[in-house]
Amino acid sequence: MAKPKKTPRPKAETPKGFRDYFGAEVTQRTEMLRKIAGVYHRYGFDALESSAVETVEALGKFLPDVDRPNEGVFAWQEADEDGKGDWMALRYDLTAPLARVYAQHRNDLPTPYRRFAMGPVWRNEKPGPGRYRQFYQCDADTVGTASMAADAEICAMLADTLEEVGIPRGDYLVRVNNRKVLNGVLEAMGVTDEGQAADVLRTIDKFDKVGEAGVRELLGKGRLDASGAYIDGVGLSDAQAEPVIAFLTSKGADAEETLTNLRAAVGDSAIGSEGVDELAQVADLLAAGGYGVDRIVIDPSVVRGLGYYTGPVFEAELTFEILDEKGRKRQFGSVAGGGRYDGLVKRFTGQEVPAVGVSIGVDRLLAALREKGRVTAHDVGPVVVTVMDRDRMADYQAMVSELRQAGIRAEVYLGNPKNFGNQLKYADRRHSPVAVIEGGDEKAAGIVQVKDLILGAQIAENATLEEWKERPSQFEVARGDLVAKVRDILAAHDLGGLG
Amino acid sequence: MAKPKKTPRPKAETPKGFRDYFGAEVTQRTEMLRKIAGVYHRYGFDALESSAVETVEALGKFLPDVDRPNEGVFAWQEADEDGKGDWMALRYDLTAPLARVYAQHRNDLPTPYRRFAMGPVWRNEKPGPGRYRQFYQCDADTVGTASMAADAEICAMLADTLEEVGIPRGDYLVRVNNRKVLNGVLEAMGVTDEGQAADVLRTIDKFDKVGEAGVRELLGKGRLDASGAYIDGVGLSDAQAEPVIAFLTSKGADAEETLTNLRAAVGDSAIGSEGVDELAQVADLLAAGGYGVDRIVIDPSVVRGLGYYTGPVFEAELTFEILDEKGRKRQFGSVAGGGRYDGLVKRFTGQEVPAVGVSIGVDRLLAALREKGRVTAHDVGPVVVTVMDRDRMADYQAMVSELRQAGIRAEVYLGNPKNFGNQLKYADRRHSPVAVIEGGDEKAAGIVQVKDLILGAQIAENATLEEWKERPSQFEVARGDLVAKVRDILAAHDLGGLG
Repeated sequence: MAKPKKTPRPKAETPKGFRDYFGAEVTQRTEMLRKIAGVYHRYGFDALESSAVETVEALGKFLPDVDRPNEGVFAWQEADEDGKGDWMALRYDLTAPLARVYAQHRNDLPTPYRRFAMGPVWRNEKPGPGRYRQFYQCDADTVGTASMAADAEICAMLADTLEEVGIPRGDYLVRVNNRKVLNGVLEAMGVTDEGQAADVLRTIDKFDKVGEAGVRELLGKGRLDASGAYIDGVGLSDAQAEPVIAFLTSKGADAEETLTNLRAAVGDSAIGSEGVDELAQVADLLAAGGYGVDRIVIDPSVVRGLGYYTGPVFEAELTFEILDEKGRKRQFGSVAGGGRYDGLVKRFTGQEVPAVGVSIGVDRLLAALREKGRVTAHDVGPVVVTVMDRDRMADYQAMVSELRQAGIRAEVYLGNPKNFGNQLKYADRRHSPVAVIEGGDEKAAGIVQVKDLILGAQIAENATLEEWKERPSQFEVARGDLVAKVRDILAAHDLGGLG
Repeated sequence: MAKPKKTPRPKAETPKGFRDYFGAEVTQRTEMLRKIAGVYHRYGFDALESSAVETVEALGKFLPDVDRPNEGVFAWQEADEDGKGDWMALRYDLTAPLARVYAQHRNDLPTPYRRFAMGPVWRNEKPGPGRYRQFYQCDADTVGTASMAADAEICAMLADTLEEVGIPRGDYLVRVNNRKVLNGVLEAMGVTDEGQAADVLRTIDKFDKVGEAGVRELLGKGRLDASGAYIDGVGLSDAQAEPVIAFLTSKGADAEETLTNLRAAVGDSAIGSEGVDELAQVADLLAAGGYGVDRIVIDPSVVRGLGYYTGPVFEAELTFEILDEKGRKRQFGSVAGGGRYDGLVKRFTGQEVPAVGVSIGVDRLLAALREKGRVTAHDVGPVVVTVMDRDRMADYQAMVSELRQAGIRAEVYLGNPKNFGNQLKYADRRHSPVAVIEGGDEKAAGIVQVKDLILGAQIAENATLEEWKERPSQFEVARGDLVAKVRDILAAHDLGGLG
């Protein structure tokens, strides 16, 4: 008889480009999203959770003449009776599913429909440092109204959200621009060719990086970039480039001055005037709502997203400084962006439905909160009740029950209790604030030892031998005072809300 | 020139077997999971969120000689340079990913490792009524300890969790059984053949449905089922069947009596005695923790999961009655289950790692809370500030800002304001409690109209024409009193915590 073939062991590896999140990484994100959802809800937005799976057709990534849809999405073909069913895919953002949901349910949904959504999305892209193939998005959109009040509302909501999660006023700025103003600028320049317009757009996208002089070169003859390569210019005359520069640098001391500068930049372009009017409306509505320029500002130098959006465009930037990987100071930068877009639902119904939305970069914002010390690196661990006598598990169980009923995070040590040192190592690894010890002598005397592990660690680091010997971090208390003593220690370390 | 071919419009449909969740369906689940996570955290469990995507190999569903992995999972082949990469799949539960994560990170994780996980899982199965291909699971597992204290802890945690989310004591029962006891029973019966043992297991799985007499028939010659079909029996003698019946019906007035009955049922089987000892340990630990038989009880009639688990098995049942689809009373039934299992990590590392866990049926438990009136059918909608004069949007915007800053969910109407009736219809569709109206006359007089829509709906349903005419549901208040008046109305409807 042949020996049965051994199946090789599977590899225990997170799939390439994916990652696992542990403990505080999960709970902090959950807590941040809960706060964001609270603000969105207060603004009248309703939650929506669509399925993670959509037909490739609905996602709009279907390439009919290739064997498999393009690589941007994770896709598979359903196996129907003939073996050839629909192509399905994981959603790559939360906007495409919103379009499908709105088209499908539009008769049952209120108009306008304010909805928020938060959850993972998937991209079938080459992963890189800090770039994963599954990540969270957190969106709010208002579908079905062209009113600038919707745009202003989303900007205000974005400011409120940042403050709610812990970014103080003064540390962020929501900057607003408008695509129609740019279109007006292009008209004023006499750029009508779509290709040339796209070239101009690509150029102003580099404004952040190359500055005014760089943009001038790129709009004209071209420019030597930092690597020494020569970048061809758009080929416009200096005079033609002027309105673009005027647009990008039109920010004045207040909204009024900025708007005046913009009106000059767009000249007599109708679409440009419309864009400036929209910005004026947004500015008025925000002022009425009490949102000053310390929070939301009209800023035509915002160029990100101008190629995608059709009206207002906005971006939330964190203005405090951090050190980059080379130790240089730089601004933290963008954590959210959005704007007004058309054609969301048109693909499905043929009808144009105006919409405006915002997307928060969940991981970026969480990183910012860490940077500001608003969230800690790890959860506070549980109080660990150690096991001195494995036959008295019931005694230890009773202790953790009491602690938990008092709202204190607590557990009994469940590993092999033989080596007491391992129990304390375990408590250390769990970042436990307190260990509880009850050996036979303590049991007989009706007492327990309560060890303040945080204080203990501080003493171990700084104390003299004398101080160390006094062991002031370990306390003997009556068994009946266990919960009270633990509570005192937690309160002393500002961990009163533990559990 | 040929006319460009028109791409047909995509269908706006939720993929078959999937569904979308709106408003309260999302927020209620989120809130329930938040409460559950709070209890798990208090018990010392750490959050884990693994990627939704795993290699098919790691999931353990790899069938090497078929073109595509089996139909239970959604799977696709990665396109590497040769076009033939690894097969990837969406996780079908939260236990298989836990095994992979534990095997991968075991040197960095505490031992034992208590973790909880909540999130969607996907099954590539034929959908049915109430059966979807994406649904939530909510698991807690302790990996790396054989101590019965871990099993007892999870039972206690399950009881605490049910109370925390809103199932009152007396409306649930956690029932505990043990697979080893059953193995002892099989030994006592003299059943050693694995096939026959599996037949016995299948039979006792039907105990819930066919009762003691039915099980006797099925263990013996066979039985006519309700449809008239004859089900072949296992072919045991009456005497051989006796220990199984004794096992299934061994529940006594208290744990002691049940354990005595079980000792009799397993006779001198060593594995059986071990199982009874384990149950005794669990019972002792729970008693020490203050968990009485009104919450957690040793009950050998629990048979679900006995085929899968290797030691203790437990199930949480809701004991209150509901009406089934035919109007008959029945118990709500099971909402959670779990037990002890081996071989979790062995597939990856070759080492046996003991583990015990529980899984809560998220949708079932949420349905139970709805049944008990613990969660409402829909969110309370926002206060709607109507638009009487579209040129005064800034005024209306200022009102919603004030309301929101007072913590009240509020929005300005963003649809076309021309038809006032549509605005009130919109408020109705949103389940808004209050509408605010400020026309030109009100503005001039410095007042606003505040309409109590909940009271208004009650009056419309029950009032006489006289009462109706008095319009006591609409109030004229000074503009400065807007927030206070809205707050009063919300408080009167017990919606003080709104927003």
